[in-house]
Amino acid sequence: MSHRMSLFGEKFAGESGISLLMKDLGAALAGGDQIMMGGGNPGYVPEIEQALMARLGKLSEDVNLFRRAVGIYDAPQGEAQCIEALADYLSQTYGWPVGPENICLTNGSQTAFFMLFNLLAGPCRDGVHRHILLPVTPEYIGYADAGVHAGTFVARRPRIELIGEQSFKYRLDFDVLGLSDSTGAVCLSRPTNPTGNVITDAELKELARLTEERDIPLLIDGAYGLPFPGLVFGEAQPFYSNNTVLCLSLSKVGLPAIRTGIVIGPEWIVQALGEMNGIMSLAPGSMGAVLVEPMLRDGSLIDLCRTHVQPFYKVRAEQAEARLKGALRGTPCRLHVPEGAMFLWLWMKDCPVPAQVMYERLKQRGVLVVPGHHFFPGLEDDDWTHKQECLRITYSQNPDDVMRGLDIIAEEVVKAYR
Amino acid sequence: MSHRMSLFGEKFAGESGISLLMKDLGAALAGGDQIMMGGGNPGYVPEIEQALMARLGKLSEDVNLFRRAVGIYDAPQGEAQCIEALADYLSQTYGWPVGPENICLTNGSQTAFFMLFNLLAGPCRDGVHRHILLPVTPEYIGYADAGVHAGTFVARRPRIELIGEQSFKYRLDFDVLGLSDSTGAVCLSRPTNPTGNVITDAELKELARLTEERDIPLLIDGAYGLPFPGLVFGEAQPFYSNNTVLCLSLSKVGLPAIRTGIVIGPEWIVQALGEMNGIMSLAPGSMGAVLVEPMLRDGSLIDLCRTHVQPFYKVRAEQAEARLKGALRGTPCRLHVPEGAMFLWLWMKDCPVPAQVMYERLKQRGVLVVPGHHFFPGLEDDDWTHKQECLRITYSQNPDDVMRGLDIIAEEVVKAYR
Repeated sequence: MSHRMSLFGEKFAGESGISLLMKDLGAALAGGDQIMMGGGNPGYVPEIEQALMARLGKLSEDVNLFRRAVGIYDAPQGEAQCIEALADYLSQTYGWPVGPENICLTNGSQTAFFMLFNLLAGPCRDGVHRHILLPVTPEYIGYADAGVHAGTFVARRPRIELIGEQSFKYRLDFDVLGLSDSTGAVCLSRPTNPTGNVITDAELKELARLTEERDIPLLIDGAYGLPFPGLVFGEAQPFYSNNTVLCLSLSKVGLPAIRTGIVIGPEWIVQALGEMNGIMSLAPGSMGAVLVEPMLRDGSLIDLCRTHVQPFYKVRAEQAEARLKGALRGTPCRLHVPEGAMFLWLWMKDCPVPAQVMYERLKQRGVLVVPGHHFFPGLEDDDWTHKQECLRITYSQNPDDVMRGLDIIAEEVVKAYR
Repeated sequence: MSHRMSLFGEKFAGESGISLLMKDLGAALAGGDQIMMGGGNPGYVPEIEQALMARLGKLSEDVNLFRRAVGIYDAPQGEAQCIEALADYLSQTYGWPVGPENICLTNGSQTAFFMLFNLLAGPCRDGVHRHILLPVTPEYIGYADAGVHAGTFVARRPRIELIGEQSFKYRLDFDVLGLSDSTGAVCLSRPTNPTGNVITDAELKELARLTEERDIPLLIDGAYGLPFPGLVFGEAQPFYSNNTVLCLSLSKVGLPAIRTGIVIGPEWIVQALGEMNGIMSLAPGSMGAVLVEPMLRDGSLIDLCRTHVQPFYKVRAEQAEARLKGALRGTPCRLHVPEGAMFLWLWMKDCPVPAQVMYERLKQRGVLVVPGHHFFPGLEDDDWTHKQECLRITYSQNPDDVMRGLDIIAEEVVKAYR
């Protein structure tokens, strides 16, 4: 049988860099004794697992709850009681102007972004081909292939602020932001995957002001962010505004395989997503929504995130940062300040060995990381050497393994500078 | 804020006929005492509910099972143990050449078809704009909007075989099939939604032969079909061949809100779907897969479908058919032979009142059905009056309501002929 695909098929089903990488990681992992520091799987936080297991137990005993979770198609916008609980929580806690008409559930955050990007970018009726502007790269690898049309993403370099001897932070460079009539939306993850950067409240407020002025939606990917799961280690505040589309997820709460994305935004965008859900998915799944709905109502989800999930990652971040900094002292390497998420972002400044080669060497040594050049979607043809000098290192798994992995990473990196 | 969408957005987020209809149905239902005979929600079959609730209880007590179901991202192809169980079951039971490399899970059947249609139809590298051929209409309403490109669907009229005084059956008309180099794939649902038709084994075999000759994939939508959930009331056999892409679902087993689609097909298509899953969904959800995996292994899922699910619908089909035929005796109306699924398909032959008006009259009387003209995707500009003469009537819900609804339908229909 021939393998005849449409151009759409070739684009989406062809092997992208990221899919090759993921297969490579998968194969290495299947090969045996490897330390997985390459993925985005959340760690297992006992307290939240217990709460979710107890709730799942209820679903297994109460036929009405069971039917609500598994036996009835939701409307394309998502499970109504959960949406109501979310609207109540967000409006009462933060005073945001959010009602049920401002919330749509999706089969995970990735699906939400696939829909949002293609809703807001690409050829438009007025003849303009609009793009999604990523104002700060590095940015999430999963965006790269999500545009139906070529040229979906346009990205900017950040300013790099050096901090002390061994740290740095990316800053949104407003001088090169370049909003225009071709900007379909602006998008950033906060905390940023892969860097652990948290764009400051001031930066975000200014970005919202500039985009609102020009009537451009501002997509904030809060998969790791605020108000939940809250993998933010400093003082940053949850943010919402008239032109904000805030995307949350239950994955980093501990439910990645339940695929529940939450989009909070202007009514016309939420309506559009509902329509797209209908056509592309019939309806989003209900299980995640029904599991957490009472935990949103009684505040226990946010409490668990604050008292257990956030500290779980914060402690690991501090330990990992200290270990790697200690082992790399004296090299030109710097770490991005780990302000959130579950990654260290290592900048091997002026290193003669590029990230791709370092990735392969580390794989040989049994440590799986992700080479940094994959995290610059929309900046592909750029000759910025910085792109070849970074590694993303996940610290969410077993701490002993993580420490062992960090030591091996440091050994290889130190060797590379000799 | 302006509502600026891309053309892609306008296509998918604009209000389609079907979405308006769904909203209309939703609003009517929310309005109070209505009999819902318009949806595709499965009924509640106690025996399968009990089995699934027991299994869910296990997931809530065993942390390793719990993590597998909710706490770990699957590979984009789907949960490996469930895929293996499916491959074992299908190859051992039916002798099909199916291994894990031939199976991909998706977030529901609708998502599978969205991916398959756009993978196989649309503009291709060789300059041909390929289409999905629907060889028998009426066909599933959910296909209509799923093509990224205009002209995704081309459809054929069936032959109509009159049976007795009050029945009929659609037959695949091979004389007008018209396979060509522009045919990207052929697709049919079996049993057919909306008609309850089951394309015969002979028809299917011939269709598979003709498509295989031309190297065209044959998509069989088995959401209601074989081997599970098995809502087939006669002797039809499960079918698979070298060029078949068989799509199954856990929805009609009783898990519509868990969103689990299963695609069985050639390796290159399964690989492509895995890539598309990765980009569009990151990974499919695991809950459905983990729930049913042991029930596939020990055969209990199929047993429950045979001994409880199929009879549940078969009895309802027989009762509904008898009631409606009895009430319509003497009119020119005919019912499609209810061979499967959960719908009666009423043909109001030569009725002066078109289906859309009948739908509105019935809604006024508190009975919600779906007017038939929505079920001819790809045949939109056709002047076939048959399209305006049919109603889809769901009989899966509470039997007392269904009987009451059928009586009201018959009253209105009889009145229309006066």
